[in-house]
Amino acid sequence: MLKLYVAPGTCALATHITLAEAGADYVAEKISFKINQQNSPDYLAINPKGRVPALVTERGVLTETPAMLAYLAQRFPQARLAPLDDVFAFAEVQSFNSYLCSTVHIAHAHKLRGARWASEESSFADMKRKIPETMAACFALIEQKMLRGPWVMGEQYTICDPYLFTIAQWLEGDSVDINAFPKVADHFKRMSERPAVQKAFAELAA
Amino acid sequence: MLKLYVAPGTCALATHITLAEAGADYVAEKISFKINQQNSPDYLAINPKGRVPALVTERGVLTETPAMLAYLAQRFPQARLAPLDDVFAFAEVQSFNSYLCSTVHIAHAHKLRGARWASEESSFADMKRKIPETMAACFALIEQKMLRGPWVMGEQYTICDPYLFTIAQWLEGDSVDINAFPKVADHFKRMSERPAVQKAFAELAA
Repeated sequence: MLKLYVAPGTCALATHITLAEAGADYVAEKISFKINQQNSPDYLAINPKGRVPALVTERGVLTETPAMLAYLAQRFPQARLAPLDDVFAFAEVQSFNSYLCSTVHIAHAHKLRGARWASEESSFADMKRKIPETMAACFALIEQKMLRGPWVMGEQYTICDPYLFTIAQWLEGDSVDINAFPKVADHFKRMSERPAVQKAFAELAA
Repeated sequence: MLKLYVAPGTCALATHITLAEAGADYVAEKISFKINQQNSPDYLAINPKGRVPALVTERGVLTETPAMLAYLAQRFPQARLAPLDDVFAFAEVQSFNSYLCSTVHIAHAHKLRGARWASEESSFADMKRKIPETMAACFALIEQKMLRGPWVMGEQYTICDPYLFTIAQWLEGDSVDINAFPKVADHFKRMSERPAVQKAFAELAA
């Protein structure tokens, strides 16, 4: 039994959806950011980074979304969630996910997590003002150069898809109109209809 | 023949060292940041992100350090640069590299690349002041919770090692004393002595 620590509205959703897609035997346990549970001693013993997601396996705890997504694809090969037999194609999947974690998620994080990188209220406000511009620039690159359609890697659904969906969810709150990016908007709609996505949302709402 | 686009002082060094460790047939081509070559039309045609590194393969171009490192480990299995036959151990390698790219490199980038996330000079100065604190916090976590020693993953050298070395190089310029982290300092010294590291430095200086 795998256990994933999650919180609504976070990037944990990508791994949560992937557990469902893989047909894994898992449980999703919610951490409350409202009571700062992610920094409680109990949770820090599981994940010293004080963040979600964290995936508890029988071998130990894994963190970092791209690593967990590739892990699930390799652990559940029958789910065909990545091109495991093609080293270059697998690297393309990893490259896409790495861009999401190191550039797109980071751009978004400057809206509410400015204290990670600066100390003054004026800097936080400045960062916040720039979000629509940075997020739109990221999604323009995704639309024009990365998303092949209908899925990120083309005809085959992969671990790139739930991750893109997870971050695309944030666009509305970031004052970016998803419809400016037709392929992303189509992808978002297509993802919303998948049973695994609906299962993850239901578990988050429970 | 693989071609890696590099620039001195950047994270491209991690992939550069790994090409040398793998015994790959490669060439390293320098991009000049001084003349903004990374944003020239010729380079943007190779890597639309306008960054280094970019790895040109016979199948296409790869970007994003964690993806390239895992690619080289998988493409050159005889070099034993990652635990390819152990899904969980491979995920641990990927988790470490993902932390470096999405948290540690990003913390460092706020020193000179503040314009990616804000617009005001006062914000850039604020970000810059915080660098010693954020980089020290990252390396404290690496020292205490991640670096097993002598190599990141323990007895076996992996693709985590050149990446940690590459970022640890930045500590001095970030006003963080590497000797506050004895395992990191030992790792840094051990890495500096590897022939592949010396080869990469010689090619950068040429």
